[in-house]
Amino acid sequence: MQLKAKYIDMESAEYTAVLNRDDALEIGVRDGDRVRIKHERSSIVTVLQTTVTVVQKGEVGILGRAYIDLGPDPDELIEVVATSKPESIEFIKKKMNGKELSTEEIRTIVNDIASHTLSNIELTAYVSSLHINGMNLRETADLTLAMVETGETIKFDRSPVFDFHSIGGCPGNKITLIVVPIVAAAGLLIPKTSSRAISSAAGTSDIVEVFCNVDFDANKLRNIAESTGGALAWGGSVNLAPADDLIIRVEYPLGIDPHAQLLASVMSKKKAVGAEFLAIDIPVGAGTKVPTMEQAQAYAKDFVELGERLGIHVECAITYGEQPVGRAIGPALEAREAIRILEGDAHPSSVIEKACGMAGMLLDMGGMKRGEARAREILMSGQALSKFREIVAAQGGNPEIKSTDIRVGEYTHDISSKMCGYVNGIRNKELVALARAAGAPKDKGAGILLHKKRGNRVDDGEALFTIHADSRAKLEQAIELSRKFNPVTVEGMILAKLPYVSRTTVIERTFCPGPSAPQGD
Amino acid sequence: MQLKAKYIDMESAEYTAVLNRDDALEIGVRDGDRVRIKHERSSIVTVLQTTVTVVQKGEVGILGRAYIDLGPDPDELIEVVATSKPESIEFIKKKMNGKELSTEEIRTIVNDIASHTLSNIELTAYVSSLHINGMNLRETADLTLAMVETGETIKFDRSPVFDFHSIGGCPGNKITLIVVPIVAAAGLLIPKTSSRAISSAAGTSDIVEVFCNVDFDANKLRNIAESTGGALAWGGSVNLAPADDLIIRVEYPLGIDPHAQLLASVMSKKKAVGAEFLAIDIPVGAGTKVPTMEQAQAYAKDFVELGERLGIHVECAITYGEQPVGRAIGPALEAREAIRILEGDAHPSSVIEKACGMAGMLLDMGGMKRGEARAREILMSGQALSKFREIVAAQGGNPEIKSTDIRVGEYTHDISSKMCGYVNGIRNKELVALARAAGAPKDKGAGILLHKKRGNRVDDGEALFTIHADSRAKLEQAIELSRKFNPVTVEGMILAKLPYVSRTTVIERTFCPGPSAPQGD
Repeated sequence: MQLKAKYIDMESAEYTAVLNRDDALEIGVRDGDRVRIKHERSSIVTVLQTTVTVVQKGEVGILGRAYIDLGPDPDELIEVVATSKPESIEFIKKKMNGKELSTEEIRTIVNDIASHTLSNIELTAYVSSLHINGMNLRETADLTLAMVETGETIKFDRSPVFDFHSIGGCPGNKITLIVVPIVAAAGLLIPKTSSRAISSAAGTSDIVEVFCNVDFDANKLRNIAESTGGALAWGGSVNLAPADDLIIRVEYPLGIDPHAQLLASVMSKKKAVGAEFLAIDIPVGAGTKVPTMEQAQAYAKDFVELGERLGIHVECAITYGEQPVGRAIGPALEAREAIRILEGDAHPSSVIEKACGMAGMLLDMGGMKRGEARAREILMSGQALSKFREIVAAQGGNPEIKSTDIRVGEYTHDISSKMCGYVNGIRNKELVALARAAGAPKDKGAGILLHKKRGNRVDDGEALFTIHADSRAKLEQAIELSRKFNPVTVEGMILAKLPYVSRTTVIERTFCPGPSAPQGD
Repeated sequence: MQLKAKYIDMESAEYTAVLNRDDALEIGVRDGDRVRIKHERSSIVTVLQTTVTVVQKGEVGILGRAYIDLGPDPDELIEVVATSKPESIEFIKKKMNGKELSTEEIRTIVNDIASHTLSNIELTAYVSSLHINGMNLRETADLTLAMVETGETIKFDRSPVFDFHSIGGCPGNKITLIVVPIVAAAGLLIPKTSSRAISSAAGTSDIVEVFCNVDFDANKLRNIAESTGGALAWGGSVNLAPADDLIIRVEYPLGIDPHAQLLASVMSKKKAVGAEFLAIDIPVGAGTKVPTMEQAQAYAKDFVELGERLGIHVECAITYGEQPVGRAIGPALEAREAIRILEGDAHPSSVIEKACGMAGMLLDMGGMKRGEARAREILMSGQALSKFREIVAAQGGNPEIKSTDIRVGEYTHDISSKMCGYVNGIRNKELVALARAAGAPKDKGAGILLHKKRGNRVDDGEALFTIHADSRAKLEQAIELSRKFNPVTVEGMILAKLPYVSRTTVIERTFCPGPSAPQGD
């Protein structure tokens, strides 16, 4: 059936088309069915919604991004046909039934995902089956390569290509801003792409965007990396392994990230830029993506073996993730903390240690002696700062950038301890929830600045952390939420009283521990 | 945030609300997030789509059924708030991780399904986890009861209540139209509710609707059953276990029907009408829901044990489902075939045998002697026809209904054999696909009339089956599809030639088998 294309300014999670109920009846399709819409130049598969008035008989409404991706001319006649189920549904069911998938079957699934052919229902069945039944390493390697094939790939003018990745889940992990300049300053090529926050307070791209562009196509990324040796780009704009973003859309509301999908997601971005040496940071601990040491070791082993199948030499570092890295959480706060370290600040030492450790692994892989010590020299000598400014300039930022240029949220509120003692617990997820309530990652200045970390001594009334926000309303939201949460706890503190008693329980403390106790950072 | 409610005449698979992007930003929600919308009298949870123009700042658009279910006054101010994830997501993940769910956890999931609180993504994760990890009988009984609790229940003025169910998947299975009048004529109460076709050519309700209403609320159903002893109602209109329909919406596109969900789906409808005696027909064979005898036995065992937990005495019949029951497939064709049998026609004998067998099981459970023979007497004597007409009249149909009143599709096309021999294969799924291409179940007259069944002898050029349609266009569609399919095959027939060769392969046959070969029905 030929229908006139009509743009509907509405965004939905799936490619969506709207037909008048009469036309839908005639084509023999109903709500939730799939229809292919096409003109001479392009074709997409959409999920159907029906209407009596939003579009007239003879029209097909196409929602938001689907219209843009199809790109019809105004009032162009569009062919609308019922489509059969995509072949990949059978392969998804095969995985649901616990079977191993062939290379070709995996490729078909990934193609259907990347072309928006699978509905949310089918995509969720895929992700669920992967979560429950898993994939072996052969399947995972095929999945990775299929994800690479459905996106852009980049070939650089020199080799080898080095890369770095940090598994998410540990807040405040801004070390990429330090690792990349160190490695590039050492003369290695590291065209790093990063993600934006999904459930965290700040992805690396959200942080970098505070002071320069991150949004480049593959060509521009290659220019930046070839001229400076490094890059701090947003992977989403480069269109590396685009199936990943569509998969994340259904993983996110379920809060799952199947092992095989996580492996393929990381490795596909690296393979797409031709990486041959890769260092992976695996933060472990409660509130991260990898809660236990055993799981971290399993990930490390799988990353290394998967690397072998893909021609990438992988080394992993299992890192401490039970509390934030450094003291700043949120785009601008993290940017400022990282640039201060590049400028020579010796604190927070946890950030410096981790960044030099990871950069050192890459220098070792690059054949340099004493990689970690060399990384520290490059940082201390100011070479990393120069390289950082070079990359920032190449990405359209200020070539003279200083930490004092970074504007953090001006609306602030201190959360103080109601007793003296030692900090014995920091809850990553609650800190992230507060930072997000304050506006992060969209509001660049929003976030949390920790004054105390595990093992730090705190006096009665002393600030544990400061909430920053870009607006008074968001600050109030975060303060409101902070009444329910105790993200930073002090030894002896009562977290909850159950069953509820109306009278106030008085906790008497007669001593305050001295300064000889351990200090955290 | 208070926003003005605006009806959007568009139907979507999930409850959907549309916000202007500015309002969405302010509330802190984005596409695909969930928002609760409420006025003083009611509240629903919806999935969010954002727009710049479809609704203005200060408005909330509510799509189709969601608007009707919420029921705001025109221009009423509606509260729109971001909602946290429903608790049941954690329980779905627990099932994904292979754990047993508690009664309370199952009840929470079913409540969230029935209230439209789960998105398609979450619902699919639930169905997928059930398909892969299953449920034990304790969980299945809890699931059944939770599904009963979230819908209507009916208490009749007399007891016990008898009921009958046929597992789907075998086309032409119109026996409910004969079983119910026989059982009711025997003096037992059988308030039967049925479903409409999902993937088949005709559900019992689609067939009954050819000659009377099927759409009744719980009160009206009780009146019909109490006055006639029987009923042939559509379960969907009675609102028994409504969570089921929402679950089917995501099962259908995946083509899955998890064992535990199938058990609970059947049993919840029976429990909701207070059934104490239940006969279940389990058609077995390729192309049905239960392909093997072992699976059929497992279903039978589970139905019986589940019945014990629910206080329902269950007996199952495993029946032959490798080819259609009788010769007619499609609403009007099946209605005509069933009424002809009630009028005394002795053919097709497969329909009579099966209907009397199933009715006999119920009469046996009701304490009558020689149930099947008694069922046959009731059918032969015309008592079943009288009772049938009584039920039809109570449901608003013609109290003098005759098979000759039923109008079948006037556009017809015969598919003939290209050789002589014996029918050795009938493919249920291909027949159903043809009937649906011809317009069934929406076009009541559309369907297939089989002239030959397994074992029947056929001459070269003799008709194997006739396609009926209500319009020439649909008939053409079905004919077109019949070129790809061979739903009825004759011994010696070439089904496919692989690899493809361009020259015609000539099959020589020099004899045609005589009439002594077996005859099917």
